[in-house]
Amino acid sequence: MKITVLGVGLIGGSIGLAAREGIEGVEVVGYGRSPERLARAVALEAIDRAAGSVEDALDGAHACFCCAPVGALPDQVAAALAAAPAGCAVSDVGSVKRQLAESFADERFVGGHPVAGAETAGVEHARADLFDGAVWYLTPSKSSSGIVLERLHRLVAALRARPVAIDAESHDRMLATVSHLPHVLANVLVSQLAHRLGERGEQRPRVGPSFRDVTRVAGANSSVWTDIYLSNAGAIADEIDAMTHGLDEVSAKLRAGDSEAIAEWNDAARDDRRRLLEADAAGGPVHELRAAVPNRPGVVAEVALALGRAGINISDMALAPAPDMRSGQITLWIAGDAPAARARELVTELDFPIVTAE
Amino acid sequence: MKITVLGVGLIGGSIGLAAREGIEGVEVVGYGRSPERLARAVALEAIDRAAGSVEDALDGAHACFCCAPVGALPDQVAAALAAAPAGCAVSDVGSVKRQLAESFADERFVGGHPVAGAETAGVEHARADLFDGAVWYLTPSKSSSGIVLERLHRLVAALRARPVAIDAESHDRMLATVSHLPHVLANVLVSQLAHRLGERGEQRPRVGPSFRDVTRVAGANSSVWTDIYLSNAGAIADEIDAMTHGLDEVSAKLRAGDSEAIAEWNDAARDDRRRLLEADAAGGPVHELRAAVPNRPGVVAEVALALGRAGINISDMALAPAPDMRSGQITLWIAGDAPAARARELVTELDFPIVTAE
Repeated sequence: MKITVLGVGLIGGSIGLAAREGIEGVEVVGYGRSPERLARAVALEAIDRAAGSVEDALDGAHACFCCAPVGALPDQVAAALAAAPAGCAVSDVGSVKRQLAESFADERFVGGHPVAGAETAGVEHARADLFDGAVWYLTPSKSSSGIVLERLHRLVAALRARPVAIDAESHDRMLATVSHLPHVLANVLVSQLAHRLGERGEQRPRVGPSFRDVTRVAGANSSVWTDIYLSNAGAIADEIDAMTHGLDEVSAKLRAGDSEAIAEWNDAARDDRRRLLEADAAGGPVHELRAAVPNRPGVVAEVALALGRAGINISDMALAPAPDMRSGQITLWIAGDAPAARARELVTELDFPIVTAE
Repeated sequence: MKITVLGVGLIGGSIGLAAREGIEGVEVVGYGRSPERLARAVALEAIDRAAGSVEDALDGAHACFCCAPVGALPDQVAAALAAAPAGCAVSDVGSVKRQLAESFADERFVGGHPVAGAETAGVEHARADLFDGAVWYLTPSKSSSGIVLERLHRLVAALRARPVAIDAESHDRMLATVSHLPHVLANVLVSQLAHRLGERGEQRPRVGPSFRDVTRVAGANSSVWTDIYLSNAGAIADEIDAMTHGLDEVSAKLRAGDSEAIAEWNDAARDDRRRLLEADAAGGPVHELRAAVPNRPGVVAEVALALGRAGINISDMALAPAPDMRSGQITLWIAGDAPAARARELVTELDFPIVTAE
């Protein structure tokens, strides 16, 4: 079986490595615009050989993965389809799917999106296990051949990902909610604070942990994100509009001074968050554990080491320094009742007082 | 000098401990509704003695700190002013200030807000160093006596905080931007996703790190936050309205498909975030370092230990597990060019590939 990878970066390289490890007798051929990158991919054994052109790369191919950034995908997929033999499965790995699905009414094309890694990171970070257990969305359109979809399904499973078929529109709407909208909010919030401080002639904001959490993803790489925003513009704009509607409701409750409505709204958010995190976690309900710690170097290590020794995995962690930078709070999220209870004991034994636990 | 603390929890207890450590010959008298809590405060030496009533507590007092939760402060401050002798400085520690400033046109009253700790955590977590280096806002009104303000200023400095005078309205507007609005956004976003998933009959969202970051503070304790939201309702509603205006602009740019405007907007957010974090950091510009790590127990410890040994302080940290829960990315924020460069070397030496660094 011959697999073609167009664009050999983190994702393309990892597809090559995973295919060469997981598929008997496979040949992985790579092509991309940078000869240096292709040479590196060969040296890292991410691909068996570098092709000299798209045509060469696709000659006799059974499947082709287009791995360009979102903005370059339409051209790359068009070139792949032009060169691909009959029956060759052509897919891509972009995080936005509807535009491609609408552009290519070709039975050989099924869009895809592995939920793993980041498009920008380079072939030197490619790993054979990048997709282990990751959801890999496949977005067949009405034109897609069932045989092509079935082949991609088996291929993706052979790369050790979990293939999930979804229509391109639903995919993009979901991504708009869980990924693109949070990025938009972070951007708007960070600029709003900067503007407010400018208005008031203030220099040094006391930016608390809540602000830092919400704005952590602000201003993500424009060369990647501009294309993502534009490719999914309609769905993101819909989510923004839903958000402003929700915000208007809160604003009205506040202006009315309705304490019961505010408490209900806040409780509902608490419940929603808990349910979403529980659904997302593999190992049971996620517990949040917050402890006061000195901010000296090594203190996070102490906590992590103690939990590590006990075999407890920290699914998420946040360290919020107090203003004096000498003390702070560490928040740990741990999946499963028993590991969380044990973590609580261990942190207490380290003499870091538990501030809240739930 | 006699200092009265009304409400002996984390903040009240810490005021007592810090005063007894920092002020020669001070007597700290505590009062609160729970005899058990008062007894614990005496046992922990956070206060010298527990009073039997507000009148007893304030008899001969030079200063009084009201430490009830925000919703209970109006009554507590009123009781304190009714019992306080002439010339006694009366202040509070609530995170919202305008309502109190408007309610008490008494020369003995100056509102206050130490930016440290959390109101709910209990006297057993009180620490003499809780306020070390923390900003402690003082919000004098037109009625406040200059002598009272000056005494509070010196007192707060003696507790090792940094007193910063600000008018109550500006204080509340600033807090609305940096703290209350992020909480509102987190709540609305989390409920929006829950609603969307319900609509689509989906069970298990793939909630990415950006979503988790933005919603981390969703559904904060209603018994505390309902009062905070209501006490600062006007300013928060104004910030919400500014946010919806900003979001509407982004929505319009997206619907227009204006790639240049989107890229500019995203770049501006990136610059704003960097400037805010730089202004907030003590030790120079904050660098972000992201590395791919296996998700086994102990791996965070390795990173933190290596940096700890080198004397590098991690000002913030986020661990984002990959879907397989066996790998992931760790993001470190480190203040200062030299420590960040050294951290980069150390992480690389641990064989965790740097994904991005800036």
